[in-house]
Amino acid sequence: MPRLLRKAAPLGLVLDAASRTPLHRQIGEQVRRAILERRLAPGQRLPSSRLMASELDVARGTVLLAMDQLIAEGYVVAQAASGLSVATDLPDEMLTAPHGHPAGPPAADGAATAALSRRARLALHDATPTFGFEEAPLAFPTGQPDREAFPFALWARLLEREWRRPSWAVAGALHPFGHAGLRAAIAAYLGAARGFACEPESIVITSGMRQSLSLLAWLVLDPDDAAWIEEPGFVGTREALALAFVRTVPVPIDESGFAVERAMAAAPQAKLAVVAPAHQFPLGTVLGLQRRLELLSWAERHQGWIAEDDFDGEYRYAGRPLAPLRALDRSGRVAYLASFSKLLFPALRLSYVVLPTALVPAAEKRMAAEAARASLLGQGALARFIADGHLATHLRRTRLLYAARQEALIAGLERHLARWLKSARDSGGMHLIARPAAAIAPTFDDRAVVAAAAQAGIAVAPLSACHAGRRRRHGLILGYAGTPERAIDPACAALARVLRASTGR
Amino acid sequence: MPRLLRKAAPLGLVLDAASRTPLHRQIGEQVRRAILERRLAPGQRLPSSRLMASELDVARGTVLLAMDQLIAEGYVVAQAASGLSVATDLPDEMLTAPHGHPAGPPAADGAATAALSRRARLALHDATPTFGFEEAPLAFPTGQPDREAFPFALWARLLEREWRRPSWAVAGALHPFGHAGLRAAIAAYLGAARGFACEPESIVITSGMRQSLSLLAWLVLDPDDAAWIEEPGFVGTREALALAFVRTVPVPIDESGFAVERAMAAAPQAKLAVVAPAHQFPLGTVLGLQRRLELLSWAERHQGWIAEDDFDGEYRYAGRPLAPLRALDRSGRVAYLASFSKLLFPALRLSYVVLPTALVPAAEKRMAAEAARASLLGQGALARFIADGHLATHLRRTRLLYAARQEALIAGLERHLARWLKSARDSGGMHLIARPAAAIAPTFDDRAVVAAAAQAGIAVAPLSACHAGRRRRHGLILGYAGTPERAIDPACAALARVLRASTGR
Repeated sequence: MPRLLRKAAPLGLVLDAASRTPLHRQIGEQVRRAILERRLAPGQRLPSSRLMASELDVARGTVLLAMDQLIAEGYVVAQAASGLSVATDLPDEMLTAPHGHPAGPPAADGAATAALSRRARLALHDATPTFGFEEAPLAFPTGQPDREAFPFALWARLLEREWRRPSWAVAGALHPFGHAGLRAAIAAYLGAARGFACEPESIVITSGMRQSLSLLAWLVLDPDDAAWIEEPGFVGTREALALAFVRTVPVPIDESGFAVERAMAAAPQAKLAVVAPAHQFPLGTVLGLQRRLELLSWAERHQGWIAEDDFDGEYRYAGRPLAPLRALDRSGRVAYLASFSKLLFPALRLSYVVLPTALVPAAEKRMAAEAARASLLGQGALARFIADGHLATHLRRTRLLYAARQEALIAGLERHLARWLKSARDSGGMHLIARPAAAIAPTFDDRAVVAAAAQAGIAVAPLSACHAGRRRRHGLILGYAGTPERAIDPACAALARVLRASTGR
Repeated sequence: MPRLLRKAAPLGLVLDAASRTPLHRQIGEQVRRAILERRLAPGQRLPSSRLMASELDVARGTVLLAMDQLIAEGYVVAQAASGLSVATDLPDEMLTAPHGHPAGPPAADGAATAALSRRARLALHDATPTFGFEEAPLAFPTGQPDREAFPFALWARLLEREWRRPSWAVAGALHPFGHAGLRAAIAAYLGAARGFACEPESIVITSGMRQSLSLLAWLVLDPDDAAWIEEPGFVGTREALALAFVRTVPVPIDESGFAVERAMAAAPQAKLAVVAPAHQFPLGTVLGLQRRLELLSWAERHQGWIAEDDFDGEYRYAGRPLAPLRALDRSGRVAYLASFSKLLFPALRLSYVVLPTALVPAAEKRMAAEAARASLLGQGALARFIADGHLATHLRRTRLLYAARQEALIAGLERHLARWLKSARDSGGMHLIARPAAAIAPTFDDRAVVAAAAQAGIAVAPLSACHAGRRRRHGLILGYAGTPERAIDPACAALARVLRASTGR
C-alpha cells in the first residue's frame, strides 16, 4: 500500500541537511515548485506525511509543518478521508512557470495582475462565495443578530448626547483600555448577569475577539509557546494565536466538551487554554462541571492561563447555565472574553476582555503602544445603553425571538431536508449544525454545498473550515438569529433543491 | 582594534551548521542565554557584527538578523556611535536564571509575574513615559490636533441623523470597503483639494495608516519580498510591513527627500516604495519633482508599487504644494494613503487608501475576510461632514491656528532653548524637529530627555526611534498643533529647565 502511494506521487525531493534553510521550508519550496511547474497535476494526491517522512528520513512533524504552510497558501487541500492533494483551483497564470511568474503574454489586465502577490492571486481565484455588498443573504448567515429588533432611534439619541460635548479623555482617546463609563457598566452587568465580580480597571475594550485574544497571548505567551485550542473551533482563535507566533494544539471536543486529559497528554507544556465553556463554537457543547474544575486545577498547578470565550452565552433557551470559569477561579488565572457586536449589530465592533488582575499593568503598557484600539465612537452610548437597562430589555426580547427561530429551523430541516441532513435542538446559541445523513456522508463536501447554496442566495458555512487538524468533519452551520421566521421555511426548501442537485438524490 | 573588541566580549558562541535551527537563531539564543546568566553584564559592549561574522565564519547578515531580534526583544540596545551593548534595564527576576525563569522565591505578586511572557515582563520594565490616562500632557504631543476647534455639537447631530434609521448595509457592516457615502465624499474631496480623480469604488476605509499599508502589502508583496522605507521614518510603516513578513530596506532622506537612486542601488529587487512626498515624517522634507518622476518611472519600468503617505498634507503654510504622485501616475502603480484622525480628533480612527484600480478585486476578497475592519459608527456622519463643506471650513480655521502655533514654538525655542536645541521653520505640518546644538550633540540621548521631560508633564518624542538602521540621529519631535498658543512659551521654559538639569549646562 505505501508502495502504491509512493508511485502515485513521485515527488523526488532532495533535502540538504547542511543548508541554512530549515528542512520544512526546503520541503515546502520543492513541492510548491513541482505544483507550479505542473510536475504535480491539479487534484493529484500526495503521499501520506508518514511515508514522506520515512522516505526523507525526517520527523513527521517537519513534513506536517511544510504541508500546513502549503495548505495555508492554497497550493494543497486536505480532504476528509483521502489525505492531501494538489489544489484544483490554482489560477492558470501561476502554473507552468516557476516562482509564480506568468509564462504567456499578459492578458488585457495581465500587466497589473502579474505584479500582484501570490496570495492575492490565489484569493482572486478563491471560489468562496461573497454576497452582494449592499444586501444580506436571504437566510442563515452565521453570527448575525436580528436586523429589526435593535432600537436604533434610541441609539441615535444616546450617540448625540455623548458627542455633544465630549471630554478630551474620550475625543483624544487617552485611556488605552477604552471608555471608563463603559468599563464600569460592563463590570456591573457581569455581576448581575454572570455572577462574578470584577474591577472596571481590569476590563479592556477591544475591536473583537481576535484583538482580545492577541492581547492575552502577548501577555502570557512567548513565540513558540503552546496553547490548547478547541477542535473544531472558531477560526479567529487560530488566526489570532498564529499572528502572535503561538503554537496551537487542537484538542478534541467530546460530549462533555473540551477534553482536558487529552490536552494534557498531547501538550503537557501548554501555557494557555482557549475554551468556550458556555456554548462551544461550532458544536454547541456545554463544558461539564467536572471538566471545568479539572481545567481550573490545571491552571493553578501549572501556572497556566485560561481564555474563557463567552461569545453567545446570553442566548440560552432551556436549563440553567453553569457558573462561568471566571466565577469559579480562585487563583486569578482566567480571562473572560465577550462581544457586543453579535448581540446588538455587527457595525458596532465592540468586544471586551476581563483580565486577571496580575496582567493589568503589563496590559496598560501593551495597549498604550497599540495602534488599532477599539473605536471610541460608540463606547459612551453603549455605556448608557447598558446602564439604563436597555441591554437587558433587548436580550429578553431577542431571546424569545431566537428561540422561536430555532424551532422554525428544526421544523424546516425536518420538513424539507431530512433526506440529506440531520440536526438536533440546541439549548442555546444563534446557529445549528446540520450533518450529512449516513447515505451521503462519504461523498459530502461541505464547501461545494456552501458554494452552491450561495448561488441560491443562501449563506451557510462549512463545518470543515472550523477544523485545524487534518481530520475534518463535514457539515453545515446554519445561523438562524439573523433570519426572520417567515424566511426560514422557504430557505429550507431552497436548500433542499440545492442538495438534490448536488447529490443527485 | 578588532582584537581589543574581541577581548571586550568573549561570547564563546558555538554554532552547529548541521542543526535544524537556523544559524541566526543559534546565535540569538546563545547571546540571550549569556545575558540572562549574567555572563554578559548589563551595559557591556558587544563585538561588531563584522567581527562576530568573521569569527563565526557566517555571513554578516546572519549576525545582523540575530542582533535585530535581540534588539526587538529588548536584550540588546543600539547606541548612536558605539554599536551594540547589553541592555541595562533588564528586569532583575529575569537575570541569573536561564530561559527567563525566576531564580529566587516569588515576591508578593511573583507567582503571577513569573507566568507573564518575557515580552510582557520587558514592557513592565520599560521606562517609556506614559501620561495619566485621563489628562493630556501640557504640551507637544505628536500627531494630535487642537482640542477645541472641532465642532462637536454639529458632529453629534450628524451622528444622530445617521443612526436614527440606518440601512442594514451600514448596521450590518456589509461592504468590506466601508460606507459608500463616505467613499463618494472622499473621492469628491480629493478631486477638489488634491487635484486627482478617482473612483469611490477604489477607496477602502481603514482604521489607520497601519491597516492601509497592511492591505497594500498583502496585495502586492509576498513574504520576504523587499520594500523601501524612509530612513528616518514613521515607526508604523516598519511595524505594518514586518507583520506582513516583508523585508524593509531603509533608504536615507536627503534634502530632496527619498533618495531614489540609492534605493535602487541598495535593493534593486524591491517591489514597493513607501514614501511621504508632501511632507516627510519626521523630517518635513518635500520630495522634489525630479525625484517624483524618477520614482514613477521606476514603478512603471519594474512593475513596482508606490504607497504615497499624505498624512498631513492638508497643513501647508507657505508656497504651493507639488502635485501628489497619484496625480502624476499614468500607469496605475500608486496607492494614496491618508487619515482623518489627525485632522479631526484621535478617537475617530478613520483612514483610507485609494487603490490602483487593478488591485480592487483582490482587495475585496481580502477585506471580506478581514476581522478588524474600520468602525462604521462614524463613517456616515463623516461623509455628511465632508459633503456639506464642514471639513473644508475646519481645515481653513485650523490652518491659521497651527501656523500661529508654529511661529510661537519657533519663538519659544529661540527664547528659552537656543543653548541646547536648534530648529528651523517648516513650510507645513503639525510638528517641528529640534536637534541638539553642536556642543552637546555627542552626548545627547534623546530618550533620556524625553523621559525627563515627561516628568515635567511635557510630551516630546525621540527622533532616534524613527530610525530603522543602526545609525540613529538624536533629536526631539515637538508637536505644536495640539498645544494651545498660550501654553507654548511656558512649556519651552519648562523644557529648558529639563535640559539644563540633564546636560549640566
